[in-house]
Amino acid sequence: MAENKVLIEMGIRAKAASRKLAAASSAEKDKALDAMAAALLENQDKILAANQTDLEAAQANGMSRAMLDRLALNPQRIASMAQGIRQVASLTDPVGEIVEGIVRPNGLRIQKTRVPLGVVGIIYEARPNVTSDAAALCIKSGNACILRGGKEAINSNIAVANALRQGLARFGFEECVQLLEDTSRETAAQMMRLREYIDVLIPRGGAGLIKSVVENSTIPVIETGVGNCHVYIDEFASRDMAVSITVNAKTSRPSVCNAAETLLVHKSAAPGILPDLARELKNAGVQLRGCEETRKLLSDPDIVPATEEDWATEYLDYIMAVKIVSSIDEAIEHITRYGSGHSECIVTDSYASAEKFTSQVDAAAVYVNASTRFTDGGEFGMGAEIGISTQKLHARGPMGLQELTTTKFIVYGNGQIR
Amino acid sequence: MAENKVLIEMGIRAKAASRKLAAASSAEKDKALDAMAAALLENQDKILAANQTDLEAAQANGMSRAMLDRLALNPQRIASMAQGIRQVASLTDPVGEIVEGIVRPNGLRIQKTRVPLGVVGIIYEARPNVTSDAAALCIKSGNACILRGGKEAINSNIAVANALRQGLARFGFEECVQLLEDTSRETAAQMMRLREYIDVLIPRGGAGLIKSVVENSTIPVIETGVGNCHVYIDEFASRDMAVSITVNAKTSRPSVCNAAETLLVHKSAAPGILPDLARELKNAGVQLRGCEETRKLLSDPDIVPATEEDWATEYLDYIMAVKIVSSIDEAIEHITRYGSGHSECIVTDSYASAEKFTSQVDAAAVYVNASTRFTDGGEFGMGAEIGISTQKLHARGPMGLQELTTTKFIVYGNGQIR
Repeated sequence: MAENKVLIEMGIRAKAASRKLAAASSAEKDKALDAMAAALLENQDKILAANQTDLEAAQANGMSRAMLDRLALNPQRIASMAQGIRQVASLTDPVGEIVEGIVRPNGLRIQKTRVPLGVVGIIYEARPNVTSDAAALCIKSGNACILRGGKEAINSNIAVANALRQGLARFGFEECVQLLEDTSRETAAQMMRLREYIDVLIPRGGAGLIKSVVENSTIPVIETGVGNCHVYIDEFASRDMAVSITVNAKTSRPSVCNAAETLLVHKSAAPGILPDLARELKNAGVQLRGCEETRKLLSDPDIVPATEEDWATEYLDYIMAVKIVSSIDEAIEHITRYGSGHSECIVTDSYASAEKFTSQVDAAAVYVNASTRFTDGGEFGMGAEIGISTQKLHARGPMGLQELTTTKFIVYGNGQIR
Repeated sequence: MAENKVLIEMGIRAKAASRKLAAASSAEKDKALDAMAAALLENQDKILAANQTDLEAAQANGMSRAMLDRLALNPQRIASMAQGIRQVASLTDPVGEIVEGIVRPNGLRIQKTRVPLGVVGIIYEARPNVTSDAAALCIKSGNACILRGGKEAINSNIAVANALRQGLARFGFEECVQLLEDTSRETAAQMMRLREYIDVLIPRGGAGLIKSVVENSTIPVIETGVGNCHVYIDEFASRDMAVSITVNAKTSRPSVCNAAETLLVHKSAAPGILPDLARELKNAGVQLRGCEETRKLLSDPDIVPATEEDWATEYLDYIMAVKIVSSIDEAIEHITRYGSGHSECIVTDSYASAEKFTSQVDAAAVYVNASTRFTDGGEFGMGAEIGISTQKLHARGPMGLQELTTTKFIVYGNGQIR
């Protein structure tokens, strides 16, 4: 693959800036974050004008209403981006924490100390607020970042990044935020091989983007996002809780990764719960796709047969697959086979069922009697999140500031040799 | 790339076995480990015969004396492998530890709980003891493993793995240890893409192997091993400590990754320390390659000029590059440029120099007044190690049992919805 000089220059600048930032105190970083927020507000007109250019191009290209809404900025949204940066400033700085510390028999004092990762690469899609959110989390955790947003939002992203850099420049940290203005796929592929300058790559977006990063990156990747989540209603579930959790998990925000996609119901619980639940879901606008037994039980012609593909699909929409299972083991097997390791829920009043489900289901978050929708950095008390990891290395589940750090062992001796 | 049915079958068996092992108690795993150790000893004759076959082939292929020694087994070495397994059994089981636990304002109890990774892939080179060491660490941490050793040791590895599986079979865990008998490069490349069945891939070996894994794997990799380590003798270093630490770091075991490769000496310390130190190194059989000032100061015709390449080389041999620097900043810059992020040491009596070095040098382990040779799982109190990570994600520095685990969030509610 050809080298990309612009990208390499960017990497060199980011790496150098990351060293400077790593040495900064929490107070210095917080001041820089405040300046970023202020600069966003000061540049509101420029940002809105750039966003207008993106919106016009998107409309001309026939972008859907929902996507246009995600792309659109207004004074309120810019204020909320600035507010988000200030909120990140208010969080506890993870850098410098001594995670473990021991003294060895030979007197060596070994301190495992939290330090920034260095340079974080983030590849994302349409929403311009990711530019400021991601930059703020990186700065707070002492990292420089190289951001590569989608081409639909490029003018907005350039305007936002310029504002952030203008704020950072007041403290000499402007090179800590780099935005890749060239949004071609080839350049993204080159970025994924910039091992020398980028310490970790985080893709944020749909399954296609994430797959492409995982397959092409030589930089360590934190895989985020795909959530084929299940609610399992156990034999011993409370009817009201089963209905309210399932409806919430499916309909409170169907477009996000922690929304439920498939409902599994124990055959003993199905007759007493599923008819009411199906009605509530239908009233909320959800189309159901059922296994044969579900369709027999509910005898509703609107419920289409679920196919093998349905079990594997993350709809991100008002659609839910439904399967009646003959045991909790069958439910766990189904989740093991089709789940994406994101968020899984059991509704049960049985201690044994709860124990079995939480120990045998292999996912970032396993819930007993609570909606899958809680898998979120804010809901988990992290203050903010850079994404939700569905891989097992480094971070699993919502990632906050701590997950944007690594550790180093600092070892103090007085002449020890081996 | 073509699918490899043998490999996929192996993956399926390992994944299923890993689920069974994840549910096993510490006591069950310890019994299985004891049985593995016993089976190694029971199969000593078969293992030695297989090793003999490998040794003869290696000799016929002209393998070096040092490599032959690493490949060779004898009753004592097999006893030591068995002892190693029993020692792993005696370590604390990391699985089940609640790493963090909080109650949210809405009453959700969120417990971040340590769980096995699942299936660990290990690609390694000639030493057959890695087969039993790696298998033991994986079993103790609740993971199945797929092992791919070098072709030079294939008969020994098969015999060792068969013995281990025989021991495991007494508890139904035999499929937890899988050895890839096909040692072709093509099959290794296919293994690196077995994302569906392998959760993490750990290469153990030389720079070439590690580079190949990093570039070709779609499975998350933990990079290990390459150590271009430095000793920096500060302006304020004690002469005796500088000499003893440098000689130890270079000569106590030059073939390993935590051995020092380049010596940096502050120009003010050089006249008082370097002549004695160079003599001691020379007496220990070390060939020095010096910068211009070093050669001027020492005026020893045996000291050849160091080239740009020397600064970047991990010799793993009785060779050391020497550079006189004009400041601690120049030393840190040199390490930043040429170091591999493994182990770095400053010898100093200055508080300010120690602070600067430990905060600005970016490596897995940074030492003040102690030899780089301590970067080792045993020396760090981990009991055993699966390797030394030189990357920043997931694990950095020596990796013990804890680094072979991930976490999941178990969330207990009583009907919470969002």
